[in-house]
Amino acid sequence: MLNKTGNVQTYLGCTAGYDEADIVIFGAGYDGTTSNRPGSRFAPAAMRTESFGLETYSPYLQRDLEDIKVYDAGDLELYGRRPEVMLTLIEETVAEIAKDGKIPVMIGGEHLVTLGAVRALAKAHPDLHIIHLDAHADLRADYLGEELSHATVMRRCYDLVGDGRIFQVGIRSGTREEFEFKAAHIAQTLENFMDKPIYFTLDLDVLDPAALPGTGTPEAGGMTFLELLNDIVHLEKFNIIGCDIVELSPPYDPSGISTATACKILRELMLVMSPIPSFRA
Amino acid sequence: MLNKTGNVQTYLGCTAGYDEADIVIFGAGYDGTTSNRPGSRFAPAAMRTESFGLETYSPYLQRDLEDIKVYDAGDLELYGRRPEVMLTLIEETVAEIAKDGKIPVMIGGEHLVTLGAVRALAKAHPDLHIIHLDAHADLRADYLGEELSHATVMRRCYDLVGDGRIFQVGIRSGTREEFEFKAAHIAQTLENFMDKPIYFTLDLDVLDPAALPGTGTPEAGGMTFLELLNDIVHLEKFNIIGCDIVELSPPYDPSGISTATACKILRELMLVMSPIPSFRA
Amino acid sequence: MLNKTGNVQTYLGCTAGYDEADIVIFGAGYDGTTSNRPGSRFAPAAMRTESFGLETYSPYLQRDLEDIKVYDAGDLELYGRRPEVMLTLIEETVAEIAKDGKIPVMIGGEHLVTLGAVRALAKAHPDLHIIHLDAHADLRADYLGEELSHATVMRRCYDLVGDGRIFQVGIRSGTREEFEFKAAHIAQTLENFMDKPIYFTLDLDVLDPAALPGTGTPEAGGMTFLELLNDIVHLEKFNIIGCDIVELSPPYDPSGISTATACKILRELMLVMSPIPSFRA
Amino acid sequence: MLNKTGNVQTYLGCTAGYDEADIVIFGAGYDGTTSNRPGSRFAPAAMRTESFGLETYSPYLQRDLEDIKVYDAGDLELYGRRPEVMLTLIEETVAEIAKDGKIPVMIGGEHLVTLGAVRALAKAHPDLHIIHLDAHADLRADYLGEELSHATVMRRCYDLVGDGRIFQVGIRSGTREEFEFKAAHIAQTLENFMDKPIYFTLDLDVLDPAALPGTGTPEAGGMTFLELLNDIVHLEKFNIIGCDIVELSPPYDPSGISTATACKILRELMLVMSPIPSFRA
Amino acid sequence: MLNKTGNVQTYLGCTAGYDEADIVIFGAGYDGTTSNRPGSRFAPAAMRTESFGLETYSPYLQRDLEDIKVYDAGDLELYGRRPEVMLTLIEETVAEIAKDGKIPVMIGGEHLVTLGAVRALAKAHPDLHIIHLDAHADLRADYLGEELSHATVMRRCYDLVGDGRIFQVGIRSGTREEFEFKAAHIAQTLENFMDKPIYFTLDLDVLDPAALPGTGTPEAGGMTFLELLNDIVHLEKFNIIGCDIVELSPPYDPSGISTATACKILRELMLVMSPIPSFRA
Amino acid sequence: MLNKTGNVQTYLGCTAGYDEADIVIFGAGYDGTTSNRPGSRFAPAAMRTESFGLETYSPYLQRDLEDIKVYDAGDLELYGRRPEVMLTLIEETVAEIAKDGKIPVMIGGEHLVTLGAVRALAKAHPDLHIIHLDAHADLRADYLGEELSHATVMRRCYDLVGDGRIFQVGIRSGTREEFEFKAAHIAQTLENFMDKPIYFTLDLDVLDPAALPGTGTPEAGGMTFLELLNDIVHLEKFNIIGCDIVELSPPYDPSGISTATACKILRELMLVMSPIPSFRA
Repeated sequence: MLNKTGNVQTYLGCTAGYDEADIVIFGAGYDGTTSNRPGSRFAPAAMRTESFGLETYSPYLQRDLEDIKVYDAGDLELYGRRPEVMLTLIEETVAEIAKDGKIPVMIGGEHLVTLGAVRALAKAHPDLHIIHLDAHADLRADYLGEELSHATVMRRCYDLVGDGRIFQVGIRSGTREEFEFKAAHIAQTLENFMDKPIYFTLDLDVLDPAALPGTGTPEAGGMTFLELLNDIVHLEKFNIIGCDIVELSPPYDPSGISTATACKILRELMLVMSPIPSFRA
Repeated sequence: MLNKTGNVQTYLGCTAGYDEADIVIFGAGYDGTTSNRPGSRFAPAAMRTESFGLETYSPYLQRDLEDIKVYDAGDLELYGRRPEVMLTLIEETVAEIAKDGKIPVMIGGEHLVTLGAVRALAKAHPDLHIIHLDAHADLRADYLGEELSHATVMRRCYDLVGDGRIFQVGIRSGTREEFEFKAAHIAQTLENFMDKPIYFTLDLDVLDPAALPGTGTPEAGGMTFLELLNDIVHLEKFNIIGCDIVELSPPYDPSGISTATACKILRELMLVMSPIPSFRA
Repeated sequence: MLNKTGNVQTYLGCTAGYDEADIVIFGAGYDGTTSNRPGSRFAPAAMRTESFGLETYSPYLQRDLEDIKVYDAGDLELYGRRPEVMLTLIEETVAEIAKDGKIPVMIGGEHLVTLGAVRALAKAHPDLHIIHLDAHADLRADYLGEELSHATVMRRCYDLVGDGRIFQVGIRSGTREEFEFKAAHIAQTLENFMDKPIYFTLDLDVLDPAALPGTGTPEAGGMTFLELLNDIVHLEKFNIIGCDIVELSPPYDPSGISTATACKILRELMLVMSPIPSFRA
Repeated sequence: MLNKTGNVQTYLGCTAGYDEADIVIFGAGYDGTTSNRPGSRFAPAAMRTESFGLETYSPYLQRDLEDIKVYDAGDLELYGRRPEVMLTLIEETVAEIAKDGKIPVMIGGEHLVTLGAVRALAKAHPDLHIIHLDAHADLRADYLGEELSHATVMRRCYDLVGDGRIFQVGIRSGTREEFEFKAAHIAQTLENFMDKPIYFTLDLDVLDPAALPGTGTPEAGGMTFLELLNDIVHLEKFNIIGCDIVELSPPYDPSGISTATACKILRELMLVMSPIPSFRA
Repeated sequence: MLNKTGNVQTYLGCTAGYDEADIVIFGAGYDGTTSNRPGSRFAPAAMRTESFGLETYSPYLQRDLEDIKVYDAGDLELYGRRPEVMLTLIEETVAEIAKDGKIPVMIGGEHLVTLGAVRALAKAHPDLHIIHLDAHADLRADYLGEELSHATVMRRCYDLVGDGRIFQVGIRSGTREEFEFKAAHIAQTLENFMDKPIYFTLDLDVLDPAALPGTGTPEAGGMTFLELLNDIVHLEKFNIIGCDIVELSPPYDPSGISTATACKILRELMLVMSPIPSFRA
Repeated sequence: MLNKTGNVQTYLGCTAGYDEADIVIFGAGYDGTTSNRPGSRFAPAAMRTESFGLETYSPYLQRDLEDIKVYDAGDLELYGRRPEVMLTLIEETVAEIAKDGKIPVMIGGEHLVTLGAVRALAKAHPDLHIIHLDAHADLRADYLGEELSHATVMRRCYDLVGDGRIFQVGIRSGTREEFEFKAAHIAQTLENFMDKPIYFTLDLDVLDPAALPGTGTPEAGGMTFLELLNDIVHLEKFNIIGCDIVELSPPYDPSGISTATACKILRELMLVMSPIPSFRA
């Protein structure tokens, strides 16, 4: 009855050991450059606790978390760090997971954490492509003079991967310059993405604030959960080599629905990416 | 001016005396088996207070609560009770209302309260059928070894009414076993329900968490209010002999929209069920 | 089991009929002149529900609500009324209760409601005195040009009862003019109050915001609950002919402690005022 | 660095001086007749602060607040006023702005504030027409005997402009009498509105409570943000000479999404009304 | 950098292995019999997360958690269990910890969990004495007919240990019968407790609601934190063989101060109980 | 009526022009190094709005804000800045205010902002002394390797002013090393402070969490408001040349009492520091 070997807490269903795992999940609770409503630092812990309100089985995908192998590596200690230090810690972590042949799944934190993961994977995969769901373009050259910011993160990713390698969904906020940059440099279709290594980054504010109020910069006019779910199901066709879910801010989620919804999205995402050859026959 | 005969508080428009009433409403604020976020024990009182923010008139149905006869019997004292005791108290209450030729409308409380009402009505109506709106299948054989639970309630109802007698709408969460059971034993259409005595049970989490955040286990991907309203309007075609609204949890409703929405649903439900021969001419 | 004679809800322990009651309690949920944080309109309903979290027995007074006779007359419909109309409704209610030989206990609502009760009792008792607990002096001649306001209520009461007839406790906010008026016209001691008919008005913001955050204008530096309780116990020596508890604002009480504390104060107040000859021997 | 000429705070992008401005925005934070959940008095201040979470650029309209001329006149001091006084203050303010050839944009407050603006503009424009978005008809002849109320405001406007001059969108709550009045006296189409001077009044509760929980009387079954945005974009075809946004209640918006959404709507509204000849080529 | 051996989470400073530990901490998040505001089921997880906002060093005791040996065994799975099952699970856990020569520290959960621990320790120590801090006497013979309840727990403990073996601090709520029972059977002083094995049970509602709003039944008139701290420091003189902290209810703690304060109390309690021979010289 | 010269918003009573002012108040809403609960970035705006719930008159000091000259310079734009940049912006602002012969009053933000002000004033006043009220010692040499942090700020101030020049009040949290450093280097009494230029820094968490829940790291066992007020009144004897109020975090203040209390403290502080020769005769 009494557990004498350590108080091991994991996300729902992420009970595999590291060596056997196909997916490795870890928390990156950093929000140091958030300009509006901070608090995404608390997202990994909040999601880990809340995930147990979910079932392990997905009726959408007809798969079960109990059938896949996920290891939960806990959270990196990032709060209070400078952006450069934070990014290096994430880059090293993602590089090691990828080197071991596993798919890294990062739980932010603010969107800047994505840059650390993309740096690691772009080194290993020179043809890395990125699918980016977000309300905000995040394509500024700088923000208040800072090059490393949640508002510049996709521009920094662009600096690494170049023209036509990023595809954006759900963007409904930005400066005129960002929309012009997007028109000139961001991919218009996914047709070149099919056989490429893909990093998938999901800023939860792509959802409408009605569905996900608990985020740093709620932006009306977003997706419903079912629209997002449909997009995630389509990821099956792609070769996802890493992903993240960012910008959940629990202090702005007094009803708890944002955290619960983020957990459900994480479940679907892990199920879609897992190698189960013969499902949905 | 001064009321000297008792502080009588009722749901909006439920001002009929018992004898004249066609519908009898009562509260069943029990949440003893809730596994996630408790608080539905507070729903009947919260709804009674909030209901006065509504109009008595429904523009959807073009009917008015002032034209129908509803008696509000107050709340049963259920908190702190064992499940068996609670179920017996509800069964006796529903049986007496039904014996007096009135339609019982129960305000939960968690979903297990439904079993008490179904026990009473299934005894009186051997061909009882059930229409069940919910996010969760509630078809487990047991939950943590307990047979009486919010997570098993429809399975226990199935034990009473049998194959093809339950119709489910909105289910999007459950174990693989529950979905298999559902495929094997739950009615696929409503075609056999038209002339049967129907119990209607509405777990409010069938709504999307955006529309109704204040519930025990919010499950993304649900109905909008207008979709639910449409379903309720269609109940006119059926012979509803009893119904409930369950799983509103006011402590998780800091903005109050969940309680307000539940009150509006209750108004529509009472108007749909009331015998007004020549309305909507 | 089933209550067929009406859904009677009362404050905890206030189960006497009108004729047998010594005390009559009623709600006056009006906040039309509140200048800062509105919401005291919801206080009577919130307290009625929350009161059942209390015991009926007071270990401080060693008395029990079950041993006294209190009738709960429900709430007056006051919201949306002009101040004059609201005051007349209260005055008529209090006059009738007093005429029937019972003690009126009014649950606000904002502080202006006190004026209606004082009008009724000052007519019946030309030597009415007032004990006033509050953070704010409420002695302005007018507020933004209006003579009827929560900020002028004690000045209006002063207009009725005159010099040396009001005693104030806990005042820590006001204009310089109010403090000068207080020094000139408000009683400095209670020595002349002992044999007089007393109206007791308790603005809950006399408590420190730590103890009672849910009020319209929280003012740091107030009493603890035990200090207030001590004052209430001393009311036993006085001839209280009416009283009120005002300025609880449930929307600013997210933890619920303000409402719970207000209920406990109400219990003590009713127990202190009730005619139990030989208690605390 | 240090600003020595006054702490000037404006809504996002509303930095023009009065003389150069085409639009003048001001706050009318009055909620004195609110019958359900008060708090809209706090909306102008809450929106001014929150607006800086937005971009100045609208990707929907491809316009930027930096390209238009808006002056922010701050807030009128209205709380604690009688309705007649409040209405006169608003009427005078709107009249002056209109006389100076600018478009007034009023931020409520409850819906009754609209009457002050309509009084001013109906005097100057005898053929004033009104487009009204709301969940509630607001067409009662009186409310609890009061002729000036949030629940009667459109009836009072009707008294000024007459039959067929008001067009309503989104109405889903009212008495039977209001719906009958609406059928008899309210315009069924917008065809006569094209060349007329239009006042546009937006009660934010026209949105579904999921999208905008923070309002006085949330009414399920409303618009999504994108549906409302579409309606606003169509205002370009009309000659809007004044407008308002009312009934945001920040105390009932614990997640903050209502205020953020209201700010975004205000941005779109100002951009649609501004005279930019050659945009969206 | 990357932790490959499991996501081990513990309370702040509780990093010892089981074998080396002097104290073993575990969560008992059960609230099945709570009659008022549920939610203590979430306390162990909330405290574990929040504890990292504290320092490991206590300036009051001049000791540091890093100098003592505490093992965190995680949480028992108790929600949804019947009281008897829950109590057995706790009894077995505590018995095993005690058998291994370690001090069990249980984090509730509601107060009924205490009975499981007392059953285990009273079997091992026939002369067990109990020090009980609480707002409520918890001495009812039964509650709504149930013998196992948060409201009867100390009566059930009394049944095990007998007259004069329980000492109560802070009691300010109960029925008349409970206070009479207390006067007759509960120890009046601690003089016989000095050399006895002591179980210490701390219901956090002994604190004033101002200091700890987040509890199931807030009861005004309680201790300040510093008064409680003083009591805890005095525990050094006693032979504590087990203890618990119960009745923290995070859903009623929107500001978070209750959880933070509970964590600080836990730190002090562990430091006081730990065998550090020569500290505070 | 209509203000055509700009929407000037100031703290309550701070209506003087810059040139005539004795005190200059400004906001420094930075929380970039906060390690626990962020949100103090929102404090200056929240306090400015809330301040109008206060009276301008202090009955404690018998002074009125209307009798003193304070200029409100608005807020510095600091969020998203690196600590070094933020500190330079503050240092320049404070230097300019001081050079103009006025007393700077800074509203944080987190505690690190203090360092910017101290840098400016220590350059101008080589014998600067500091009075520091706080729950936390803030004397770490570094925090997670960073020298600039809310947790190191007083150590950095010590680096500027040296031994015996800082006096601390209310400290009840820190590492063992910090308490040792404090014993060795921090002044034990105020006797040498009487004729020196003093900077006063008030971390609001010196108050007990009951009185001020809305702060980044609530630490039980703090001062009451009246104890703090008493300390502030005693500042009259000192030569205060600058001061700040830091660490109010509005997102963790759902009841609003923290912000209201902070505003009252600011009023008292400004009144104590203002040169009114003959008051309190």
